[in-house]
Amino acid sequence: MKVFIDKDYHALSERAAGIMLSEMTRDRRVNVSITAGASPVGVYERVIKALGGANEGAKATAFDNVHYYNFDEIDIPGEERGVTRKALDEGFFDKARIPEERIHTLTCKNWQSHQAAVEAAGGLDFMLLGMGGDGHFCGNMPGETRFAEHIYKIQVKPEYPWYEAFLQMKITPTPTFFVTMGAAAIMKVRRLVMIVNGEGKAAVVKRFFESRVTEEFPSSVLKLHPNFTLILDRDAARLL
Amino acid sequence: MKVFIDKDYHALSERAAGIMLSEMTRDRRVNVSITAGASPVGVYERVIKALGGANEGAKATAFDNVHYYNFDEIDIPGEERGVTRKALDEGFFDKARIPEERIHTLTCKNWQSHQAAVEAAGGLDFMLLGMGGDGHFCGNMPGETRFAEHIYKIQVKPEYPWYEAFLQMKITPTPTFFVTMGAAAIMKVRRLVMIVNGEGKAAVVKRFFESRVTEEFPSSVLKLHPNFTLILDRDAARLL
Amino acid sequence: MKVFIDKDYHALSERAAGIMLSEMTRDRRVNVSITAGASPVGVYERVIKALGGANEGAKATAFDNVHYYNFDEIDIPGEERGVTRKALDEGFFDKARIPEERIHTLTCKNWQSHQAAVEAAGGLDFMLLGMGGDGHFCGNMPGETRFAEHIYKIQVKPEYPWYEAFLQMKITPTPTFFVTMGAAAIMKVRRLVMIVNGEGKAAVVKRFFESRVTEEFPSSVLKLHPNFTLILDRDAARLL
Amino acid sequence: MKVFIDKDYHALSERAAGIMLSEMTRDRRVNVSITAGASPVGVYERVIKALGGANEGAKATAFDNVHYYNFDEIDIPGEERGVTRKALDEGFFDKARIPEERIHTLTCKNWQSHQAAVEAAGGLDFMLLGMGGDGHFCGNMPGETRFAEHIYKIQVKPEYPWYEAFLQMKITPTPTFFVTMGAAAIMKVRRLVMIVNGEGKAAVVKRFFESRVTEEFPSSVLKLHPNFTLILDRDAARLL
Repeated sequence: MKVFIDKDYHALSERAAGIMLSEMTRDRRVNVSITAGASPVGVYERVIKALGGANEGAKATAFDNVHYYNFDEIDIPGEERGVTRKALDEGFFDKARIPEERIHTLTCKNWQSHQAAVEAAGGLDFMLLGMGGDGHFCGNMPGETRFAEHIYKIQVKPEYPWYEAFLQMKITPTPTFFVTMGAAAIMKVRRLVMIVNGEGKAAVVKRFFESRVTEEFPSSVLKLHPNFTLILDRDAARLL
Repeated sequence: MKVFIDKDYHALSERAAGIMLSEMTRDRRVNVSITAGASPVGVYERVIKALGGANEGAKATAFDNVHYYNFDEIDIPGEERGVTRKALDEGFFDKARIPEERIHTLTCKNWQSHQAAVEAAGGLDFMLLGMGGDGHFCGNMPGETRFAEHIYKIQVKPEYPWYEAFLQMKITPTPTFFVTMGAAAIMKVRRLVMIVNGEGKAAVVKRFFESRVTEEFPSSVLKLHPNFTLILDRDAARLL
Repeated sequence: MKVFIDKDYHALSERAAGIMLSEMTRDRRVNVSITAGASPVGVYERVIKALGGANEGAKATAFDNVHYYNFDEIDIPGEERGVTRKALDEGFFDKARIPEERIHTLTCKNWQSHQAAVEAAGGLDFMLLGMGGDGHFCGNMPGETRFAEHIYKIQVKPEYPWYEAFLQMKITPTPTFFVTMGAAAIMKVRRLVMIVNGEGKAAVVKRFFESRVTEEFPSSVLKLHPNFTLILDRDAARLL
Repeated sequence: MKVFIDKDYHALSERAAGIMLSEMTRDRRVNVSITAGASPVGVYERVIKALGGANEGAKATAFDNVHYYNFDEIDIPGEERGVTRKALDEGFFDKARIPEERIHTLTCKNWQSHQAAVEAAGGLDFMLLGMGGDGHFCGNMPGETRFAEHIYKIQVKPEYPWYEAFLQMKITPTPTFFVTMGAAAIMKVRRLVMIVNGEGKAAVVKRFFESRVTEEFPSSVLKLHPNFTLILDRDAARLL
């Protein structure tokens, strides 16, 4: 684990975007898995700009080797795209004009075959992820997660920190389960970058450093990944 | 995790030796970490033969690129070499005539700097390991291990399955602690092969497949390694 | 470059098969590219046996993660399968009962899109190849090859050492060109093993060691590959 | 080969520095090899700033895992440091306050053992290099280079483009040879980034794209590297 404490959100975003772009710069297919949510907005802003600006006169092709994956999903009944995919569309794919054939969406329908599809494409090269206030990462919830799983179903429970936000989406009927990549799948990703910012995360960051590796505190397993970079801003690192 | 069930100890040894030799065949330094004990005798027999027989007329140099590491150690008071190193000398190093400059011994004296030394040499490429009847691997004991550790000290306790054998060595004064590579260090090894043979291991093998990833059953963490091969003989696989 | 001189064809085949099987033993898709011809017969014998014998009671699935690729092809007018594919069917695929969905055939029809297909599947992990008496490898012919090419078309010429054998196949009309992976594509393969056996190859082996890296002697470029193992028998190494 | 054409030197430097910093961000030893000269000034400016600014309160340690290597050298009689090392001191090491124990200098004295030292440290992870107006890279001169060499001696000749600049250094007695990493060693570096800027390089860049892979035009061999990024500014790309 490599840890950086950057002075603010701007610096954190700069650092994470630099690594993401570097990993995308290869003369072969690159598979990246990215997170939705508020934390990566600054990263995506920079990456979207770089995607548009690369190779003057060849804008559309410079990063055409990059394929994109989500790592968890809640399906919306009657709609083709779920909660995560929609958030990624809005936050990244639409702005970066990523064509559909380079987006490989994990859903509550394809979850049993998705890991095989990822591996048939050479595996994931890079993942950008965040940490929940309860220590969850991807959809791996405290106590519910099974580290040995690759991709699995998990029940929606009222005790999850995102449950309120989830209810406010007014999805009908309310989904009862979602899908996520588990720790076994994440350990196969060649490079992980986790960004955590803001005072609201200071307590969970402290807990992360102190916690034993246990399914009760899912993010703890990331300490075992051989190529994991944790980027904090000063606010998130306040209790260290 | 890739699992093989071979028909007997001979076939298991053949398979593991083939992988070990393949990993040693590179045009660069290769760092391998190997286990003492009874299980690998058949593997070492084959590897020792290959080391002696490679390149007729150039026997001494064909695998000179390979460096060796142990992964745990109990020091013997007043002696330079500990329990593990002596067992490896007898089981492998002496027979294969590995010169001292290519053996990098972890001891109860150098354990705090050893991980840095491993990494300064490019990290471990390959590790051959076994599983204890209680689910321990290397010196990572149930309940005592901390997965997040790289190399750490652990107390000798009477409840360990090897305690009787340990007392019979009549080391005076009786060592109170030993050192081992922990899960965080093992997750950085590029390729792991674990061999488990014999009916006596059937119960722990069954437990391995059923267990959640937990420090109470240390080997469970190996399910998270991205390049892990488990080779069983039929006896060890009897309860699957 | 790592060089082994084995005492005979049996030992050479044993060593190459050991490496090939080791590379195939992974918990993920593995892409291997293999050569037709007489030299690998001994290797395939061993690999075919291992494919059949792995996991008693699970014979069909132990190496289901392995996908196969040819690296050159001469199409046969009016037939679906070309010269190389037919030879591989006979020498390996049929005997090992590899299902069609795990064989990815390069042909004179798909050569322009094949490299992209290889890369979309994560690239080649392993290639087993031989060396021609004129220093060619794959279909890279002396003076005709362009090292910078990935996959390209090359004209059939009477001066090629295999031209007589080619005419005796009595393909009508006689093909005027064939396709091959070039050096740029071969340099991307993660591990290369070349086997060369028999007195008839002694002169070209000597030339290989003495040659500068030049398109006039195609195999010379393999000296630049970072993970290349050359396995000779004593006869082939006679002039070294 | 991945090619970028950036709009100016600023953008080119930004892109190359981003990749270099990303490669340096690992939880293990990282070995980087860097070039002297005018082209990388903008890259080093950014990297030096990042080295100073990482981890507020922990400035000295954030990139302590990074070790540095030069790839060619002309010794200066009577002095410990040669031409390249002095230029790197001035351009990078002094400003970034890299301690001597993390600088591993290739010299005309240690060149025969240096490759082994590089490999004993795990090999080079990253190299930043430039291209000469005559197509040379590192000290690999047209017609004089031998691609199959790892590190070798090469004679100083009046026809080299840098000969005038070299004479003006007034080294006495004038060195008659220098040392450089050759293509075989460069092919083992895990990631290569070459930066080429300015109108003066437009002709050689055009030649690079058109040239066959040949020792007469040394940079041509880089087209064979599996992880090579070429970053040009618009001026250098003017003739493409």
